[in-house]
Amino acid sequence: MAEVATAAREYLEATRPVVDAALDSVLPGASAIPESLHAAMRHSVFAGGKRLRPMLALAGAEACGGAREVAMPFACAVELIHTYSLIHDDLPAFDDEALRRGQPTCHAVYGETIAILAGDALQALAFEVVSDAALTSGNPLDWTRAGRLLASASGSVGMCGGQTLDVEAAGHDLDLDGLRQLHALKTGALLTASVVGGGMVGTGDATAIRALTDYGDALGLAFQVVDDLLDVEGTAEELGKNPGGDAARDQPTFPSLIGVEASRAEAKALRDRAITALDSLPSENTEPLRGLADYVIARSH
Amino acid sequence: MAEVATAAREYLEATRPVVDAALDSVLPGASAIPESLHAAMRHSVFAGGKRLRPMLALAGAEACGGAREVAMPFACAVELIHTYSLIHDDLPAFDDEALRRGQPTCHAVYGETIAILAGDALQALAFEVVSDAALTSGNPLDWTRAGRLLASASGSVGMCGGQTLDVEAAGHDLDLDGLRQLHALKTGALLTASVVGGGMVGTGDATAIRALTDYGDALGLAFQVVDDLLDVEGTAEELGKNPGGDAARDQPTFPSLIGVEASRAEAKALRDRAITALDSLPSENTEPLRGLADYVIARSH
Repeated sequence: MAEVATAAREYLEATRPVVDAALDSVLPGASAIPESLHAAMRHSVFAGGKRLRPMLALAGAEACGGAREVAMPFACAVELIHTYSLIHDDLPAFDDEALRRGQPTCHAVYGETIAILAGDALQALAFEVVSDAALTSGNPLDWTRAGRLLASASGSVGMCGGQTLDVEAAGHDLDLDGLRQLHALKTGALLTASVVGGGMVGTGDATAIRALTDYGDALGLAFQVVDDLLDVEGTAEELGKNPGGDAARDQPTFPSLIGVEASRAEAKALRDRAITALDSLPSENTEPLRGLADYVIARSH
Repeated sequence: MAEVATAAREYLEATRPVVDAALDSVLPGASAIPESLHAAMRHSVFAGGKRLRPMLALAGAEACGGAREVAMPFACAVELIHTYSLIHDDLPAFDDEALRRGQPTCHAVYGETIAILAGDALQALAFEVVSDAALTSGNPLDWTRAGRLLASASGSVGMCGGQTLDVEAAGHDLDLDGLRQLHALKTGALLTASVVGGGMVGTGDATAIRALTDYGDALGLAFQVVDDLLDVEGTAEELGKNPGGDAARDQPTFPSLIGVEASRAEAKALRDRAITALDSLPSENTEPLRGLADYVIARSH
């Protein structure tokens, strides 16, 4: 598994510059008015993200037999949504983080007002990019379906709903089902939408979309279990932030509920479930998704 | 003009319950999980808005010869965007308002964290509603065009950009052109997108879309000039908030730059420009838009 994860990491690192170039082209230039807002948006989009969600979108299109390039606008859109959520999540009213991935957060550099607006504008840009692609692609309805999925995965019964549950969970008892529901919304919905939306714009059929949904749901939860483990076991250097933040905020986590060993086993079982979900798709097309599943388990930050 | 404005106000008041019912149907129920988030979203959507933007969307569709009902999802989407912008604009990092339209603001009731998330989720819902309509309408590409317009009008070179210019303008000298640009982005872009997007989903042709764009641009600026005048001349009872806020924040306004009389003349000239823009459309279809232009000038809050 470590070897596959290395292959996936290399694949990720080779594709990242292509994703970054696409993000650069959809973002207004840093000298466009208002400059402060555009600089703030660019600061956070280019603050060292792994681009896991864009990779999932591209690999989702590939898994459906499409060319990965067709999904690039969708890959950009999910990363814009992810970035906006990080900006808002770092605000003083939320986690009040001055650092993210070892870089100063948006509000630490540009102030709270501009940071809120930068997040708002990144969300709008995500839907602008999807609409543009719908209008220029040969399959506008697939793009509209993917845009609809992205909107619902981002909203009050998706990511924003999960953020709310997370804020309200601090200091409260939450059982394992409650924790799973929280993460299914907070991080799972957007991870699943990334791979499934990629499959949609890659003209995946109903069988493929179902397989990608199962894959995304399992991978999303695995991602969060590993995130919780890293907060217990990782180093500040690996994480780009201080570990132990969950415990300090009295935030329920998988290790705090079921222990470190059982959490590791859970992550491994979820990874296996994600891989198994791909069985109905041609295996040569799903190679990147298999690698990404291993990468999620093996990652150290 | 006062008589036409009265007719427009009656028309507005008769249509408002229909818009409110549509908004109620697109918002998740207040008991949907997470309850606090959905309650916060509903609190602000139903805090007594005039529904001017939805009316513009419906009247825009009518002006193109369509049935007003076809544009109802778009009317809801623009109001969701408008509401999210008010929630964020009232936050402590912005205007720090405890009251809006005489009601407690979202963060005053639900706290800052939930208020930020409620705004974020309302934006996502707007694009979900537009995507849904695109998938079920007979003219999906028109809906996608309208959605794209809504996204760009909301984003960094639209409303969020205007908010940024507004925040940065406080305490600085701004000339009349600078003030016009600020308002063209901050309030004008969404007002224009409301009427033009309504026209798009009402299958307006290029001539109609151009006429609606000119109408919206003039109306949007007239709206802001009147807003500035009300802040000087209105009473707290009429406004639902204390007047004089612009002066207190040292915010540049039309009256502060050109005086009250010249501002009134400017508003009247912009109203005439808006009406003239409609000349290329059949006059029986544009009656609601004419009335709305007079209403904007005659309104007291």
